[in-house]
Amino acid sequence: MALDPKRTVRELRELQELTSDSNGAQRVAWTDMWLRARDWFRAKLEGLPVEQHYDAAGNNWVTLQGQSPKALLMGGHLDSVPNGGWLDGSLGVMASLEVLRRFAEEFEGRPPVTVRLVDWADEEGARFGRSLFGSSAFAGTQTIDSDRARKDRDGAELQDAVRRCGIEIDRIGEAAAERKNAAAYLELHIEQGPVLERMGLPLAVVLGTKGVERHAVTFFGQEAHSGSTPMGARRDALAAAAKLALEIRPIAGRRPDAVCTMGSVKTYPGIVTAVVGRCETTLDQRDLNPEVLAAMHREAVAASERFAKEEGCTVEWSRIWNIEPVPFDSELIQLCREAITETAGEAPELPSGPLHDAAEVSRSGIPAVMMFVQSLGGISHNKIEDTREEYIEMSVTALDRLAAKTANWIQGRGKN
Amino acid sequence: MALDPKRTVRELRELQELTSDSNGAQRVAWTDMWLRARDWFRAKLEGLPVEQHYDAAGNNWVTLQGQSPKALLMGGHLDSVPNGGWLDGSLGVMASLEVLRRFAEEFEGRPPVTVRLVDWADEEGARFGRSLFGSSAFAGTQTIDSDRARKDRDGAELQDAVRRCGIEIDRIGEAAAERKNAAAYLELHIEQGPVLERMGLPLAVVLGTKGVERHAVTFFGQEAHSGSTPMGARRDALAAAAKLALEIRPIAGRRPDAVCTMGSVKTYPGIVTAVVGRCETTLDQRDLNPEVLAAMHREAVAASERFAKEEGCTVEWSRIWNIEPVPFDSELIQLCREAITETAGEAPELPSGPLHDAAEVSRSGIPAVMMFVQSLGGISHNKIEDTREEYIEMSVTALDRLAAKTANWIQGRGKN
Repeated sequence: MALDPKRTVRELRELQELTSDSNGAQRVAWTDMWLRARDWFRAKLEGLPVEQHYDAAGNNWVTLQGQSPKALLMGGHLDSVPNGGWLDGSLGVMASLEVLRRFAEEFEGRPPVTVRLVDWADEEGARFGRSLFGSSAFAGTQTIDSDRARKDRDGAELQDAVRRCGIEIDRIGEAAAERKNAAAYLELHIEQGPVLERMGLPLAVVLGTKGVERHAVTFFGQEAHSGSTPMGARRDALAAAAKLALEIRPIAGRRPDAVCTMGSVKTYPGIVTAVVGRCETTLDQRDLNPEVLAAMHREAVAASERFAKEEGCTVEWSRIWNIEPVPFDSELIQLCREAITETAGEAPELPSGPLHDAAEVSRSGIPAVMMFVQSLGGISHNKIEDTREEYIEMSVTALDRLAAKTANWIQGRGKN
Repeated sequence: MALDPKRTVRELRELQELTSDSNGAQRVAWTDMWLRARDWFRAKLEGLPVEQHYDAAGNNWVTLQGQSPKALLMGGHLDSVPNGGWLDGSLGVMASLEVLRRFAEEFEGRPPVTVRLVDWADEEGARFGRSLFGSSAFAGTQTIDSDRARKDRDGAELQDAVRRCGIEIDRIGEAAAERKNAAAYLELHIEQGPVLERMGLPLAVVLGTKGVERHAVTFFGQEAHSGSTPMGARRDALAAAAKLALEIRPIAGRRPDAVCTMGSVKTYPGIVTAVVGRCETTLDQRDLNPEVLAAMHREAVAASERFAKEEGCTVEWSRIWNIEPVPFDSELIQLCREAITETAGEAPELPSGPLHDAAEVSRSGIPAVMMFVQSLGGISHNKIEDTREEYIEMSVTALDRLAAKTANWIQGRGKN
């Protein structure tokens, strides 16, 4: 077997060297640096018995044709946030390449099932605010009409930025053709959270991606002079918001894996000498169980209304975005559990709080599973994002084991 | 007696007509509209036996020479905030003019004591952020070096703006010469708060201006992904700030007239998908008792440190500004109480939360007192600022009574 996990580490460092500056990775989708990363990746394919093409949404597909057309898919994304890390997304791509090489070598270019690597286009949505761009087109859940005119900070439109990279916004749905024969999808990713580090374990099975309820919650009180308005005569919008900021913690805390976050608070007029008349907040709630998610949302709404009333304020909710929970395939979860146990001894199971391309793939009906590798300090989207090299290597080995098991599973299903 | 309180209302409406647009009063100091207001005011002096001049800081002095050089001072300010109301500041000036007219008529141009009206320059500090500009120069508490280069929104410097109005910034301290023979200072102002309206009373004796402790309070936690960071692993700077936003209320509430306000909250990175890593807040604390003010400040600091610790955060305090409480003269307070009781039947006593020129005058050692008239809805610094005409007229009458009593008091003191 030719699997060389150390090569994955070397290649990841090479990519980072090529596409980062002193502030971190700059592989933002649809930029020259991203295209450079993709050219670098394509050069890595030389000598491999594979076919490569970009689909209608800009996803990069590398196919090792097998004896069966049924395809095992694996992947990640080379695009990063601005000032990003060296592993978020690219680990999945480069580990998949290593596994693809192993398949090619072991089966002399013709494995029992087809093996395909995908580098999804614009997972991060960092420039235009539309994450999962390529995988949603693949899954048939693209939202062209609301996305085409999205603008970046400099006023450039998404439809023009993608055209520059050879993509016609109105045709990205044709990427769905890549779903043909797809039998399973595997994705290795850094955890981006502190759970595995706290457990002292390198790898985890990912049970699915949590559903998200994301809302703007605005409290309306009465702007008033900080000097002349007695405490009892105030209608302080900030006080109502502060109560909600604290109450979302027991709301989440009553459920084992749930999270609720108030990430932004804006005060108006927002000056030192005025009681806050209007307080705009954002609330992000996540859980893998749709009933838990719905209950948390209901409880937060009820709490906000109670606090508004207590403070002589009113409150308005406006949904920013939501997505249902996406549980991964139970059979692939079992295979992932086995692969991790064989590699690392223990296989903890986590839901993923962040969204991933695997969720879009899963929503399209293709069995999918993800594997997490420990993140140091739980930090990502930052140049200090890091994972111990030893764990990166273990993750490549575990992904390879999972891929082998999944290929067998695909074959077995084909025989039924 | 020629006192005509209805004339004050008419003149205030005339001034508002001349110097406001659809958004409210625009008599911002050092602007053409302010100069227009001052020209309009000067024209009102025609025929009165008075001397008028602008001092070195731009304060406008109108002097009715009396038999004694000892002077009774009364005043206010014609400058307004942008989009301001028709009464804040200008009521004090126009009511004082009416009282001056009464003195001139009753004593045929030669009252027992000298009576002086002052229109302070730039009370609001709306354009350059330096309030009490003229009265601080009068009091000898001007801060030229830190003020000369203050800029407005368009980049114009304070020293240039005042020069355009004939003021040399380095010479404003010469306004202290106006303190000569000053024996008392009276100022009528709208309350700018809801207390008198809640009491159902028109007028109040002002006991002094509250001291202010104004701080920037910043909590430092750890920015983290809202999806991947379990509730128990967070160091949420917003949570610590929210606890403080709520705790300042019992801190103030334990004291009868104290106020504490968190007027501004800023969250960083301030996005819906991140736990707040840094939360910048402002705290404004006021009380008339310096010991109470100091205790409230200590309690807020201790609470913030406790909350920071509870949330795994740190906290930093930075003083923005402070001023000690300025109690008004007890004998003038008694005269004010009598004047209000005779006019309105009941004389409630309030501290002033907002600062006023009277505080600067008082700090310079001149006995001072203020009178408040009810504000509708407690609203000021807004075009909807208003007071019932009947109450405006009562306030002019009460100020006149207070002025008469104070003139007698000045005479009486002279005899000792």
